[in-house]
Amino acid sequence: MIEGHGDDLYKYTRPIVANFSSNVYANADLSGLKAHLRHCLDHIGSYPEPEPYTLEARLASLYRLRANEVCVTNGATEAIYLIAQTFRPARAYILQPTFSEYADACRMHGHIVSALYSLPGEREGFLLPDDADLLWLCNPNNPTGSVVDKVWLEEVIRYNPRVCIVIDQSYESFTLRPLFTPAEGVNYPNVLLLHSMTKRYAIPGLRLGYVTGNEGLLSRLRLNRMPWSVNLLAIEAGLFLTGQEAFLYHAETISCLEEARWLAGALRALGGLEVWPTETHFMLVHLRMGGRASALKDYLAEKYGFLIRDASNFDGLDERFFRIATRGHEENRLLVNAIGCWLKEE
Amino acid sequence: MIEGHGDDLYKYTRPIVANFSSNVYANADLSGLKAHLRHCLDHIGSYPEPEPYTLEARLASLYRLRANEVCVTNGATEAIYLIAQTFRPARAYILQPTFSEYADACRMHGHIVSALYSLPGEREGFLLPDDADLLWLCNPNNPTGSVVDKVWLEEVIRYNPRVCIVIDQSYESFTLRPLFTPAEGVNYPNVLLLHSMTKRYAIPGLRLGYVTGNEGLLSRLRLNRMPWSVNLLAIEAGLFLTGQEAFLYHAETISCLEEARWLAGALRALGGLEVWPTETHFMLVHLRMGGRASALKDYLAEKYGFLIRDASNFDGLDERFFRIATRGHEENRLLVNAIGCWLKEE
Repeated sequence: MIEGHGDDLYKYTRPIVANFSSNVYANADLSGLKAHLRHCLDHIGSYPEPEPYTLEARLASLYRLRANEVCVTNGATEAIYLIAQTFRPARAYILQPTFSEYADACRMHGHIVSALYSLPGEREGFLLPDDADLLWLCNPNNPTGSVVDKVWLEEVIRYNPRVCIVIDQSYESFTLRPLFTPAEGVNYPNVLLLHSMTKRYAIPGLRLGYVTGNEGLLSRLRLNRMPWSVNLLAIEAGLFLTGQEAFLYHAETISCLEEARWLAGALRALGGLEVWPTETHFMLVHLRMGGRASALKDYLAEKYGFLIRDASNFDGLDERFFRIATRGHEENRLLVNAIGCWLKEE
Repeated sequence: MIEGHGDDLYKYTRPIVANFSSNVYANADLSGLKAHLRHCLDHIGSYPEPEPYTLEARLASLYRLRANEVCVTNGATEAIYLIAQTFRPARAYILQPTFSEYADACRMHGHIVSALYSLPGEREGFLLPDDADLLWLCNPNNPTGSVVDKVWLEEVIRYNPRVCIVIDQSYESFTLRPLFTPAEGVNYPNVLLLHSMTKRYAIPGLRLGYVTGNEGLLSRLRLNRMPWSVNLLAIEAGLFLTGQEAFLYHAETISCLEEARWLAGALRALGGLEVWPTETHFMLVHLRMGGRASALKDYLAEKYGFLIRDASNFDGLDERFFRIATRGHEENRLLVNAIGCWLKEE
């Protein structure tokens, strides 16, 4: 396990009043869920299902899949480690820069890990390196916010049938670009889609994610999982949230992306910052004029109680990168002002 | 993952009114904990610590250990799988019959697994088989309720310094026989002690356990663990429970063992049952006159709403074994009557 993820508010003595450092959705209304979980606390004296069958069946029915095409996990993180464990030892390629857990999980399980910085295109016949067994990509990608063209990705999947392609769609609710639906994913023998309830519903404390994919791949994962990995309250939360009419449609996507566009524009207007184009609600920013992201992070936390993500530990990025996730408009405005002050002082 | 553990109440349509099938303590008062967790629900929007540092430090301080001599896990189950993963590939011996997860975890991680039916004694120089890398034992043992003599175990540990000895003390709060304290355990370079908050506090829904052992062994485990495996509410529960004065002393042990003695006696008095001697609050029972434990289990569930554990899938046991955990006196009395009725009908 490495250190240096976002959401590390416990490191600061001053209370964090606005957390831009993790990509969980800031404006989720959790009141209904919390009221439900208050009742569920009466059941903590019972074991959860050894594997979350009931929630898997519910998700399958919503997505029109078979129950064994869904595997519910202890956060998407368990899915990542389970996939790395199941396919070991392999030659794994990772589309970088991206979330560091894919490489960590692969190294822990003895894979040989290499970075790819772009997918093979038409000129390369869409062919991945000859020795590839596994390809990991995050789509929309953390930390860049970019989305791979769906048609391109389909070609890569089709031309590399021997490669298991893991697509982490944890941020799928926060983009308008076309992505694979679970029902499309299961048609490929070599695709696993990762999904996160954490990001969509802002419940990282509970730990709840799931994998969809064809039965053959998922039965291999199931052989490698431990029982009771998903706690009872996470399962109950999943059953509650999937029971809401809005589960398949995220009404807030558009307003959230509009706010991200405003935030990117306001940061660019400060001068001295290169804001990478994003297709989702978070964005990667480069300190063009120098200075270190870690210094900015400490300044914002200590002076304002704002937490951002120092992105210098992502493969391929340097100490001048940071990532911020969109919050409400007023908080975003205050963050822009605070960053502006730091830029002036530097 | 195999099927067939206890606590499978979801399999029956009739509500289970008394669950004797899992070894969690039946009479725990969870009201204070639940009230605390109701407040903690407000924090599910934050990530838990990537590794539960704060709770590890708390446990270390209570046991007078260093913080890196404690590793908090997603139930004791995560500890079992983490140990199997860390020491792979190995030649693993398991003291049978016992909890099936040790063998499952070892097989999943490619160990060669063999059964031992007793520990080597003085005549064998306390020596384990030459090729042993790992030894797993449960103490008090599930499902037999037996406890290994502490002095004997010390000899086995001392004479086999090359073997990592994993002692699952999940039921340590429910026996009066001497066991290793965490402070004693860390003095051995080759001992890992597993502990369960689930069993002691009856909170299997939350998933909370921990390992204690010397720094060297635990640092190897830490290299193999995924981040955020323990959810935020489990961590909060651990902080709450370890903050209670009673944490280091389980006042109910004696009454619970007295009730177990009454239950064993009443079952023996029915005739036709062999009740194994137990040193803890659960017991293994053999249908001496024939009949199948699975038939008794279905009868009790469907006719009375009582759930027992069919123990026929433990290594070395047959289809006539079942396990029951002590509950309150009135429930125990009703269970004895119900089993008596089944024996008469058979």
